[in-house]
Amino acid sequence: MAPETSELGGGSLLLAWQLKNKHVLIVGGGDVASGRIESVLVADARITIICPSQGLHPLTKRFINSTHPITYHDRVFAGPEDLAGADMVLTAIDDVAQSRVICSLCRDLKIPVNVADIPDSCDFYFGSQIRDGPLQIMISTNGQSPKLANIIRKRIEKSLPDHAGDAINKVGELRSKLKERAPGVGGEVGKRRMRWMIDVCTSWEMDDLALLDEEMMKRLLDDGWETNSVPRPDDVVGRRRRTSGVLMTSSVIPYVVGFVTGAACAGILLFARRR
Amino acid sequence: MAPETSELGGGSLLLAWQLKNKHVLIVGGGDVASGRIESVLVADARITIICPSQGLHPLTKRFINSTHPITYHDRVFAGPEDLAGADMVLTAIDDVAQSRVICSLCRDLKIPVNVADIPDSCDFYFGSQIRDGPLQIMISTNGQSPKLANIIRKRIEKSLPDHAGDAINKVGELRSKLKERAPGVGGEVGKRRMRWMIDVCTSWEMDDLALLDEEMMKRLLDDGWETNSVPRPDDVVGRRRRTSGVLMTSSVIPYVVGFVTGAACAGILLFARRR
Repeated sequence: MAPETSELGGGSLLLAWQLKNKHVLIVGGGDVASGRIESVLVADARITIICPSQGLHPLTKRFINSTHPITYHDRVFAGPEDLAGADMVLTAIDDVAQSRVICSLCRDLKIPVNVADIPDSCDFYFGSQIRDGPLQIMISTNGQSPKLANIIRKRIEKSLPDHAGDAINKVGELRSKLKERAPGVGGEVGKRRMRWMIDVCTSWEMDDLALLDEEMMKRLLDDGWETNSVPRPDDVVGRRRRTSGVLMTSSVIPYVVGFVTGAACAGILLFARRR
Repeated sequence: MAPETSELGGGSLLLAWQLKNKHVLIVGGGDVASGRIESVLVADARITIICPSQGLHPLTKRFINSTHPITYHDRVFAGPEDLAGADMVLTAIDDVAQSRVICSLCRDLKIPVNVADIPDSCDFYFGSQIRDGPLQIMISTNGQSPKLANIIRKRIEKSLPDHAGDAINKVGELRSKLKERAPGVGGEVGKRRMRWMIDVCTSWEMDDLALLDEEMMKRLLDDGWETNSVPRPDDVVGRRRRTSGVLMTSSVIPYVVGFVTGAACAGILLFARRR
């Protein structure tokens, strides 16, 4: 679909930033900083926290005392030397002037920086987040309404399939096994692998994908990939192992509740009139 | 809530990157590149595209011929001089060796880079996206299953409130008007503003927020903010203007359908037995 060019603009570029083995400096240790620490640990970063101990939030203290790779300095930001080796800088302090100094130093050194509460000192913003294993979702209102972002996050959480995270993990495993069985980068085999994986993902429910184990994956590849077909979940997972939730999904329940109530009301009404 | 430290790790840091007045270099012009161009234009970046004309996707051509701030060079990547002034580099070409060279140059210059299909040459990944005005949502499976990310995106799209984007815009406007009426950064007034805005967002449905116009915002601020209360939507929006969707939301429909069907079935059954 060709996008309407007039509809573009006014937003952000949403990204999944990689921080494995990277070094993040967090200046501040309060409520906001503790949320930043959590987000950054999700991405496997090494962290340095600079904050006088009297300003530490209980959650921040807990992180500092955990086994995570966190270095803690009980003092205020000292100057450019604190930025040495940092791949990203996040500040969450009340001192606006100091925040702007840190931002300016970061920009000179081309270190991506976020200064809490000062949008024009931010190379990037945070959003409301959901995580379920490998699944990560971010909801951004581009600074218009953090509260509505939160309300929307809760609605999305409710709408997510029950075992989405597990299903994604299992599909990732299946894809690795398929690559071992039919190796090669790009070309015909690459296209066939991609088509088959898409067929599996579209013809199976997420509940069924989440149930896949080693033996079932082998059966799916033997009976499916080798014959260029996609077996039904019943043939691989087995009827007994599937949850009843597949037959009675939550979307059916309102209809059933309505039907029973309607039938009961009509019955009572007709029965009463008959007497 | 204190997070379980054992649950952290293995993910990415999801961000809303800011590109207003920034310069993004895109090397390549095919299918993948056209998607990148769209994502980057959403964030109001200036773009340079480097790609021989025979490799241009129709969508890429459309962008080049549009009024967007795009500079196009009909050639292959020439060397470090092409990176001058770039704030971000995205490559989507088939030449793996060339891709790695560009990545290495970007890292030397500390320019964030994404190389399509080569994860270890990426400072960040893209995800499946939803946009509704100021609302932007990204779904990432951390590279495990782009197809499942797409399936989940479609489910989320269906679950979103109808007028979420409009509601966010209106709440953003209301917040600006409130800041004009009760100015000041932080402190008591800042806290009171935040609390009142949260009260409005939680006690009003998104459909009602989306209907707010200049006059209604004034009434909401006069009758609500000034008396430290939140008027009901009926008192501000007026009954006539509210959509019937507020009374008959889609979640009620299955119950009604079930009720009518149940009543009809019971009626027919009892009527038949009576004869």
